[in-house]
Amino acid sequence: MFIKNTWYVAAWSHEVKAGEMFARTITSIPIVMFRAADGAIRALHDRCPHRGAPLSKGRIEGDAVRCMYHGLRFESNGACSQIPGSDRIPPAACVRAFPVVERNKWVWIWMGDPAAANPALIPDTFWLDSPNWRYQPDYIHYNVSHLLIADNLLDFSHLPFLHETTLGGSAGYAEGRAKVDRLDNGVRITRWFENGPPAPFVHRLTGWETNVDRWNIYDFLLPGVLLMDSGSAPVGTGATDGHRDHAVQFRSAQALTPETENSSHYFFSQAHNFALDDPGVTATLHGQVVAAFKEDWDMIHAQHASLALDPEFRMMPLPIDNALGHYRWLVNKKIKAEETATAATTTSTAPMVKTVSVLA
Amino acid sequence: MFIKNTWYVAAWSHEVKAGEMFARTITSIPIVMFRAADGAIRALHDRCPHRGAPLSKGRIEGDAVRCMYHGLRFESNGACSQIPGSDRIPPAACVRAFPVVERNKWVWIWMGDPAAANPALIPDTFWLDSPNWRYQPDYIHYNVSHLLIADNLLDFSHLPFLHETTLGGSAGYAEGRAKVDRLDNGVRITRWFENGPPAPFVHRLTGWETNVDRWNIYDFLLPGVLLMDSGSAPVGTGATDGHRDHAVQFRSAQALTPETENSSHYFFSQAHNFALDDPGVTATLHGQVVAAFKEDWDMIHAQHASLALDPEFRMMPLPIDNALGHYRWLVNKKIKAEETATAATTTSTAPMVKTVSVLA
Amino acid sequence: MFIKNTWYVAAWSHEVKAGEMFARTITSIPIVMFRAADGAIRALHDRCPHRGAPLSKGRIEGDAVRCMYHGLRFESNGACSQIPGSDRIPPAACVRAFPVVERNKWVWIWMGDPAAANPALIPDTFWLDSPNWRYQPDYIHYNVSHLLIADNLLDFSHLPFLHETTLGGSAGYAEGRAKVDRLDNGVRITRWFENGPPAPFVHRLTGWETNVDRWNIYDFLLPGVLLMDSGSAPVGTGATDGHRDHAVQFRSAQALTPETENSSHYFFSQAHNFALDDPGVTATLHGQVVAAFKEDWDMIHAQHASLALDPEFRMMPLPIDNALGHYRWLVNKKIKAEETATAATTTSTAPMVKTVSVLA
Repeated sequence: MFIKNTWYVAAWSHEVKAGEMFARTITSIPIVMFRAADGAIRALHDRCPHRGAPLSKGRIEGDAVRCMYHGLRFESNGACSQIPGSDRIPPAACVRAFPVVERNKWVWIWMGDPAAANPALIPDTFWLDSPNWRYQPDYIHYNVSHLLIADNLLDFSHLPFLHETTLGGSAGYAEGRAKVDRLDNGVRITRWFENGPPAPFVHRLTGWETNVDRWNIYDFLLPGVLLMDSGSAPVGTGATDGHRDHAVQFRSAQALTPETENSSHYFFSQAHNFALDDPGVTATLHGQVVAAFKEDWDMIHAQHASLALDPEFRMMPLPIDNALGHYRWLVNKKIKAEETATAATTTSTAPMVKTVSVLA
Repeated sequence: MFIKNTWYVAAWSHEVKAGEMFARTITSIPIVMFRAADGAIRALHDRCPHRGAPLSKGRIEGDAVRCMYHGLRFESNGACSQIPGSDRIPPAACVRAFPVVERNKWVWIWMGDPAAANPALIPDTFWLDSPNWRYQPDYIHYNVSHLLIADNLLDFSHLPFLHETTLGGSAGYAEGRAKVDRLDNGVRITRWFENGPPAPFVHRLTGWETNVDRWNIYDFLLPGVLLMDSGSAPVGTGATDGHRDHAVQFRSAQALTPETENSSHYFFSQAHNFALDDPGVTATLHGQVVAAFKEDWDMIHAQHASLALDPEFRMMPLPIDNALGHYRWLVNKKIKAEETATAATTTSTAPMVKTVSVLA
Repeated sequence: MFIKNTWYVAAWSHEVKAGEMFARTITSIPIVMFRAADGAIRALHDRCPHRGAPLSKGRIEGDAVRCMYHGLRFESNGACSQIPGSDRIPPAACVRAFPVVERNKWVWIWMGDPAAANPALIPDTFWLDSPNWRYQPDYIHYNVSHLLIADNLLDFSHLPFLHETTLGGSAGYAEGRAKVDRLDNGVRITRWFENGPPAPFVHRLTGWETNVDRWNIYDFLLPGVLLMDSGSAPVGTGATDGHRDHAVQFRSAQALTPETENSSHYFFSQAHNFALDDPGVTATLHGQVVAAFKEDWDMIHAQHASLALDPEFRMMPLPIDNALGHYRWLVNKKIKAEETATAATTTSTAPMVKTVSVLA
């Protein structure tokens, strides 16, 4: 079960190249994306209604795509405009088109009711397309539920353990408790760690040998978007009072998008606003993040394998889990609300549809 | 569910070598084939009744096979003739023997009631063993249901799309409608494409730069046998009136045999009756066919993966699908008729057999 | 379903190295083993109660282990002694500890009620740690149920067939019937083969060209431990009367431990008490055994694949199967007795536990 009426990150802009089909399954629905003549991205259900062949193995023809199994052609709104060997085009011969917005290098897709697809709901990630920030975009595929990865991102107390030599720091970091604000569509987490040694990756970037004040302030928003302001500054330079002149600052944009119930897409970036002319800094920072995310990947897949051995295992909530507890509650609440709404609609306007579909 | 009382192609003759066991699963039943002393092929259930070990990992002893786990020996009619360490041979210690006919380089097996195994039901494939034809026999394994491959073979309108640069031709080929005759045990498809460019593979063989008349006339017969007369001749040489003196002609024999519900054997050949002394023509023609069948393999596996994501998807029948619609109807009708017959037999003659087997 | 109140072989001693975590799943329960400061092996459930992460990906800290996901620390008795970021340690924050005994190079683990874990129940394998015997310890992983491997070990009539050129011998070996004594916790099998050619592996070790008297006397004990006294001596040297001066003698210790319902651990060794100073003899003997066990592995996996095709297949009991029939009966009896005892306990002392666990 997935939330439908929400914007999911479907791709980095550069993944969808002009003249090429790009296929990606999102919430168990195969999607094909391509750029129309005007450069705008279109997204269609990647399944020909005729025999189920993937349109992404077909051909772009102007703003349309042609299925290269039997030659049906679909316009970018999903309407079928040609069936070789047939005079008539049946009304059912169309594919579903999905609202898409390309903004700040991310391609957002709306998997629910198109009428509700309001671009104003897309969170702000201005630094992904700003001359004041540098980053290297990246992507990792997971063979686990997106919820296990969300758990990881919602509790940074794992940094000094799992990421001891990369993002981590001293064990004291984990002892501090983060402030958690519950939002309507997620959680806001504020974690200050004052007067501690710099994190290994910050030390590698700055060479600082003295203690720092460190902050991680981020929103984790439905359906799985993490937007973070973080940084470190030498103790005594006023960072805790809002002075960042001596700080190194980062902006992180990460997005989890379910591929299926047990596999996930993970888009991520860690931007910096200093040393803008030094690609080595960007590369070093990215390398540190990738090394740490590999540690997450290993642990979460091992956790997934452990859970698979015993479906009756129940996780044990601890105080450090209050953010992820709230987030999972929000996800379930939203899914249930959508189910209820769908059931109501189905009952009143098309009571036999579900049954007919099963019998067909 | 599979049709039982029918001849399936089990192998090419050359696959079953003297002195060697040959194992192949057909309709979910593991089969071992071997040549008896007289050279005739025998087929047994490839499972020792004792502990289920495959006989094909055993040893041929004259006309018998010995299971090399615990040494039980079975005659070629399936009767057990020795159990090491036992004085007595229980009546249940036998394996099922299957009727086999080797004809025109194909090995046919009957998976149903042996009493009904009439060799006269085997379709004629004379050109597979004729000095007037040349071909290279081949085999491909599919990890999909045989029905998806049958769909493909029953509608050649996919040629100009999926096989654009191999078997295909101009888009006009797909616009022409094939004549479909419904047979008791399959369909006969007749497709003429007059005054069009030669198919890419014909052009490579002949070098023809002028338009041709092209025909594909084939029977697709239960349980999955395609027998085709096809060819092309320069326009104006009378091919449409039955004159083939200036034509290149082909005979295709293809057979789909279910391995399991979701995997299939595909035997194929494309014979030519010209340039009989030029092995290069045989090799080129075969290479073209293999390249095209690789295109089918890729598309059908992609289609299978797409269908697996959504079990509720229903295919949308188009006019071009009338042949495959009839064929799927025939398959289901035959399976149901066999189920009904089996149920009747079980009830009247051995009411407890099924129950006993489950409890044993 | 597995027997719980029994000693399973969990590892060879040398597999659990000081300072390293060693993970192995036993009866579908992931176990982590490590050596405490005193060198003794401790075994814990390899799953943090917090979010299910494997402790084996964590860190040994003295006699404790720390989960390296969020830093929970567990003492070697399973009690949680630290939760970073939490003042309180909830009673449920513990992992299950399993009784372990290291004896004669095998690590034994008790998967049931710790109160019942009596080390006196561990069978004697003195030759695994004796200066009078030499062997090379080894391990094979199987992707089949342990029962199929037990079947194999309980009937040596397969030696002249499956192991024709390794452990086997003449077909006459299989014609002789073994004496089977039913024990409370297994079976004792005594098989003499008098005045026959030496087994291939014995011939390679001794060069004997004359006939021998050969014996295989072994106990196969719950939950899957084979302890064998075997050997061969030239005919006429009195082996059948108990004189072994001219014999080559072997002691075999083998243990099957279920990993899951369909995968198994197989620990084995074949010790000899002659040529103690010749490592070449140890290596040759071991190589022969490994070659034969590869034959078993191939056959049993093929058997497993055959059985998977038809879940309704029932094995056909033969007289040679009386030992394995008794053994399977013992396994089932013990599992049922434990189920009955558990049900009784649950009902009387904690009637709601099972239900609560499912609902939690």
